[in-house]
Amino acid sequence: MRNIRDHGGGLDAAVTQYGGARADWLDLSTGINPVPYPVGEISADAWSALPDSGAMDRLLTAARRFWNVPDGAEIIAANGASALIAQMPRLADTNDDSVYVPGPTYNEHAAAFRAAGFHVMDQPDSDAPVQVFVHPNNPTGHIKPVEAVTSRRLNIIDESFCDVAPMESHIAQASYDGVVVLKSFGKFWGLAGARLGFAMCTPDVAGVLRDMLGPWTVSGPALEIGARALEDVAWAEATRVRLAADAARLDELVGWKLVGGTDLFRTYEVDDAAAMQDYLAQGHVWSRIFPYSKTWIRLGLPAPDRWDQLRAALA
Amino acid sequence: MRNIRDHGGGLDAAVTQYGGARADWLDLSTGINPVPYPVGEISADAWSALPDSGAMDRLLTAARRFWNVPDGAEIIAANGASALIAQMPRLADTNDDSVYVPGPTYNEHAAAFRAAGFHVMDQPDSDAPVQVFVHPNNPTGHIKPVEAVTSRRLNIIDESFCDVAPMESHIAQASYDGVVVLKSFGKFWGLAGARLGFAMCTPDVAGVLRDMLGPWTVSGPALEIGARALEDVAWAEATRVRLAADAARLDELVGWKLVGGTDLFRTYEVDDAAAMQDYLAQGHVWSRIFPYSKTWIRLGLPAPDRWDQLRAALA
Repeated sequence: MRNIRDHGGGLDAAVTQYGGARADWLDLSTGINPVPYPVGEISADAWSALPDSGAMDRLLTAARRFWNVPDGAEIIAANGASALIAQMPRLADTNDDSVYVPGPTYNEHAAAFRAAGFHVMDQPDSDAPVQVFVHPNNPTGHIKPVEAVTSRRLNIIDESFCDVAPMESHIAQASYDGVVVLKSFGKFWGLAGARLGFAMCTPDVAGVLRDMLGPWTVSGPALEIGARALEDVAWAEATRVRLAADAARLDELVGWKLVGGTDLFRTYEVDDAAAMQDYLAQGHVWSRIFPYSKTWIRLGLPAPDRWDQLRAALA
Repeated sequence: MRNIRDHGGGLDAAVTQYGGARADWLDLSTGINPVPYPVGEISADAWSALPDSGAMDRLLTAARRFWNVPDGAEIIAANGASALIAQMPRLADTNDDSVYVPGPTYNEHAAAFRAAGFHVMDQPDSDAPVQVFVHPNNPTGHIKPVEAVTSRRLNIIDESFCDVAPMESHIAQASYDGVVVLKSFGKFWGLAGARLGFAMCTPDVAGVLRDMLGPWTVSGPALEIGARALEDVAWAEATRVRLAADAARLDELVGWKLVGGTDLFRTYEVDDAAAMQDYLAQGHVWSRIFPYSKTWIRLGLPAPDRWDQLRAALA
């Protein structure tokens, strides 16, 4: 298997190593909101019929409004931001197959470009015609100024974690040539299993991306749930408030030095990250550490009824 | 939009043109089993968590057993056969960018290769290094002998409709170099909205395909439903019996000359296909006609409680 990469998730492997029932584990290894948008009723048609254009139109209209997508940009939906990330190297219509991916960051971007034969550089002085940045960055929470966005021929801005900080979004740049903004539904709305993500870009790039993905990219249930969720601005606002409070609560509970993060995940510095991950795993709490750092450990937020388990594991 | 192509589905457009409520229409424009596999309970985790490897392993084990995938072949799952079809041109590692797609057939294959810059030929004497055929063919139901399967450098066999005739499958060829067999979950199991499809091929090609698609290709709910359905051999056997009976019933009811088909769809010859489509649409029955034929009309099977509507529309 060529694309086994270092991800969050992987709870199954932790359960195998440390024992216990999967349901008893507290999985903090991702940055997924633990209080998901209610799935609600799914129509029988959503499962059985080929997703029709009406359902997709409703989703895209809701997405356009929710994210203030500029008029000059198109928006397309796919089965998760990951499906779009995998196609990004094919948008780089260039003879210079090099890409600047400021690190450390979410590793699927570099992996996708490497698989496509690109030379990946993480140095800021690079002349690469393509850049990819995660905004806010995962795992550091770093924010980039708008000047950084459009500086190259192709600029891919992954705003998978930007819904907790919408004022920071670079979505206004999505109508410019050479800019692609990616959005994820799974994280802020807590429905990563539904597989739904978006790209906002100029119409010509959107046309190319549609051809790359083929038709019916999003399941019928995800179209329904996504449309309802993106139309529900009140839920989003209340969720932002709750996530901010929980992120502060997590910082206080662990008492570790904060490296950075967003209101969906917090990256801390500890003496020995691997030892701390192991220690938490004894209490069936699964965390995230990184191959490039011996001291960073990242935690997502516990669900409201699971804080005691984290407190016990830390004791 | 570059990839608006001539498809089944499109019921929304018919409703707009002919009126009526969407739910009152009988959509026979696709070859989807109208009695879907029961969706059943979906775990909360399937929606909220990133799909974990355990759920994917269970699905692939069930798929391997159901389809008798040979030991030397790997199997990978994607969000619908369409997602795999869109990537097929990238597997054609050749300087001769021509592909043989015997026609008439399902048009996504030619569309995907054309979008990738290939010259598509439908003539049988072609020397193209790549061939794609749908097996049994849609809309003719044509079956190919095994000698046709491995005759070129890359042979893509789309068995989306083969589950009604499993004895015809060329799956035993999936372990040979240059053969990719595609399977669809949506049609035979009647859950096209769930988006689930499979490719069976040699391990090296499977590795390349995985990189092309990225991680988490299948939603958590589709992993659960797909595994349950593929483990349920009794349901599949009973469904084959019912579909065969309903296909015969449809032939008898319409009384038109049969061009061909499978037990999931029937293609008939009528004097004026467009006029017949229009006539059926007055009765809110949606059918499928083809840009390349003035006389062919294709019907899927009505659900058990919807035959009266077809009978009335035909009257």
